[in-house]
Amino acid sequence: MARPMTMTEKIFAAHAGLKDVQPGQLIKAKLDVVLGNDITAPPAIKEFEQITDTVFDKDKIVLVPDHFTPNKDIKSAEMAKTVREFARKHNITHYFEVGRMGIEHVLLPEQGLVAPGEVIIGADSHTCTYGAVGAFATGVGSTDMACAMATGETWFKVPASIKVKLIGKLAKWVTGKDVILKLIGLIGVDGARYQSLEFCGEGVADLTMTDRLTIANMAIEAGAKNGIFPVDSVTENYLQDRVKKAYTTVAADPDAEYVRMVTIDLSKLTPVVALPHLPENVWPVNEVDFTPINQVVIGSCTNGRIEDLAQAASILAGRQVHKDVRAIVIPGSQEVYLEAVKLGYVETFIKAGAVVSTPTCGPCLGGHMGILAKGERAVATTNRNFRGRMGHVDSEVYLASPLVAAASAVLGRIAGPEEVGA
Amino acid sequence: MARPMTMTEKIFAAHAGLKDVQPGQLIKAKLDVVLGNDITAPPAIKEFEQITDTVFDKDKIVLVPDHFTPNKDIKSAEMAKTVREFARKHNITHYFEVGRMGIEHVLLPEQGLVAPGEVIIGADSHTCTYGAVGAFATGVGSTDMACAMATGETWFKVPASIKVKLIGKLAKWVTGKDVILKLIGLIGVDGARYQSLEFCGEGVADLTMTDRLTIANMAIEAGAKNGIFPVDSVTENYLQDRVKKAYTTVAADPDAEYVRMVTIDLSKLTPVVALPHLPENVWPVNEVDFTPINQVVIGSCTNGRIEDLAQAASILAGRQVHKDVRAIVIPGSQEVYLEAVKLGYVETFIKAGAVVSTPTCGPCLGGHMGILAKGERAVATTNRNFRGRMGHVDSEVYLASPLVAAASAVLGRIAGPEEVGA
Repeated sequence: MARPMTMTEKIFAAHAGLKDVQPGQLIKAKLDVVLGNDITAPPAIKEFEQITDTVFDKDKIVLVPDHFTPNKDIKSAEMAKTVREFARKHNITHYFEVGRMGIEHVLLPEQGLVAPGEVIIGADSHTCTYGAVGAFATGVGSTDMACAMATGETWFKVPASIKVKLIGKLAKWVTGKDVILKLIGLIGVDGARYQSLEFCGEGVADLTMTDRLTIANMAIEAGAKNGIFPVDSVTENYLQDRVKKAYTTVAADPDAEYVRMVTIDLSKLTPVVALPHLPENVWPVNEVDFTPINQVVIGSCTNGRIEDLAQAASILAGRQVHKDVRAIVIPGSQEVYLEAVKLGYVETFIKAGAVVSTPTCGPCLGGHMGILAKGERAVATTNRNFRGRMGHVDSEVYLASPLVAAASAVLGRIAGPEEVGA
Repeated sequence: MARPMTMTEKIFAAHAGLKDVQPGQLIKAKLDVVLGNDITAPPAIKEFEQITDTVFDKDKIVLVPDHFTPNKDIKSAEMAKTVREFARKHNITHYFEVGRMGIEHVLLPEQGLVAPGEVIIGADSHTCTYGAVGAFATGVGSTDMACAMATGETWFKVPASIKVKLIGKLAKWVTGKDVILKLIGLIGVDGARYQSLEFCGEGVADLTMTDRLTIANMAIEAGAKNGIFPVDSVTENYLQDRVKKAYTTVAADPDAEYVRMVTIDLSKLTPVVALPHLPENVWPVNEVDFTPINQVVIGSCTNGRIEDLAQAASILAGRQVHKDVRAIVIPGSQEVYLEAVKLGYVETFIKAGAVVSTPTCGPCLGGHMGILAKGERAVATTNRNFRGRMGHVDSEVYLASPLVAAASAVLGRIAGPEEVGA
């Protein structure tokens, strides 16, 4: 009989052809999805071409030029061209061109390319997002991506798991972003280093897929190898019309072993903000000193989905962005953008004096579309506030939910949604 | 009695306090508008601060950070910051922040900041756009802008004028862009060097303000000091709800002297394209060889107005951008963007697989938002196709109208609107 296993262990065992696995074990797992973007795929392609000239499966490689597109300069144009030409040469099914794509971690779930029980690697640290649908998903380097594109498998050390028990229900103004920031604040940016964050508890049912995607997305910010959610009716409803491929849902055994358990009472959370320069530097918004800001960014793989834009729009509707603030709204995909147009959010944003950008990772990583000058401060719904992340080494990023970001845009300082909202 | 004068001569005489002026004469003219952007204003500000610490008129300086915004990198962020701080320090009335602005030459007419009979200089070569409303407007360097901000006047050598007589009416699929490209093709990129292009003739009445703005915008591409249109009911209708300040309309004397007359029969024009690498390299679209393309750009100070987007939308509605093409649509201002949302154009573009960018000069000048890699070709509604203008030195830009650009986006090659349109 197999030993009791966590979700991650079960997925690994199934993909390694083993009865069971345990933390610390080195395994070789078959891969369901191998992802790369316009920054990470070009070096992977270069390595790949030294190994072979045949991809393991043209349907399982996903290429998304989302970081510096539409191209910000000649160098990024050449990188995007490398990815495009590779996709054509190998007839990659899931290559997404500018105008028919989005931010990778918004796009893949939306397009039904990730499914429960899968093993997914991506040459991007926020690949862990797909744990929201009950998959094992993690970020790797470009060399790993290269080998994976050639062989369709890679090695892993099975991580130990932390059980994150969610209880209660979120109060008004509190979102998935507040949940994950709170958790990172509790355990620190290395609190889950090379471990799996396995979310469970009755509180999960209250979280939308958007909440879960945001939470899993930032598992890496606690150092986690992955973050993973149980598959429930919320998940199944989300996947229903999206995922066309067969998949096998796994659930943790009741007696699976965890190295730690953290309980979060969702009902006790309030809107929070992570102050510079670490995502663990988390404070309730209403305890933050008066902090004038220069920019607000609403979007990214963390918070660029339609529900995120809906939250921002609910605050910005009929209000004006503060005169000293540039508010940049970045829908996470063309589908999100279209939906935001149809639902009137884009009109709301423009009327409020925000700009609406085409989908891109853009400012989150200091790429383009809103880079900060010396001494400037941004409230962003993105995932990292490391020193210089969004521009000048002496600029500052404050991480928050779309509600907090939108409220801050209106008031020109860090503010909670309850200060402007109804 | 004053000598008979052209429009430009009359405007100069009035602004120099002279009875009349003649070509070649050096005059000092009072300025109604002094314009700068995020590229040209920072060096102007630096020079200005060596001269004085007081602007001549806080209401007559216009600052628009449109080229590299939302900021593409730290350097551009610092430049925008310089402009912003200068605007605050001097309490500049017409400083336009990201989210409340647009491409300068779309924005100024739209916001009623330019009026007939005015003398306008801008540290941007396409300042000549405002000739469309019967103003004298021309591009200057940053040092000229610096002195102008200090003194409110500058010197000019009065240009000789070329009379461009327009007769007939435009046929279907033919636009202002085709008119100006045809003219540049006829007289060459130095055909009007330091001369004024004065448009006249019964054909003018048939041209919309958008056509006129596009035509005047590209006067510089024939080397002209300025391009200028008579003020008629079309102009007055356009200005009616926009311009709040008093202005004095001028008309050319019937016996004014011109160095040359060029007649263009609008009814004989067909859609054209300017092949690389000069705007004078103009050919009828249907005579251009099969030319596959990689990118289409619809926007810019030349063709980023709502009527331009309407034309593009009319072609893209219900169609798809060719799989090998990135189509980038850039509304010229927040007002244009909002209108495009309301009229359904943005939805059309997204459904067609185009991206819609926030207002910026962006790719036109190789700035950002769609830079070309080596060997790539773009059809663009922009104004210059010099070697390397939109990116790599071995990339190519083909200048055309929004109709031609949109048709090319659909077919993946240079194409006329009649090939796809109905």
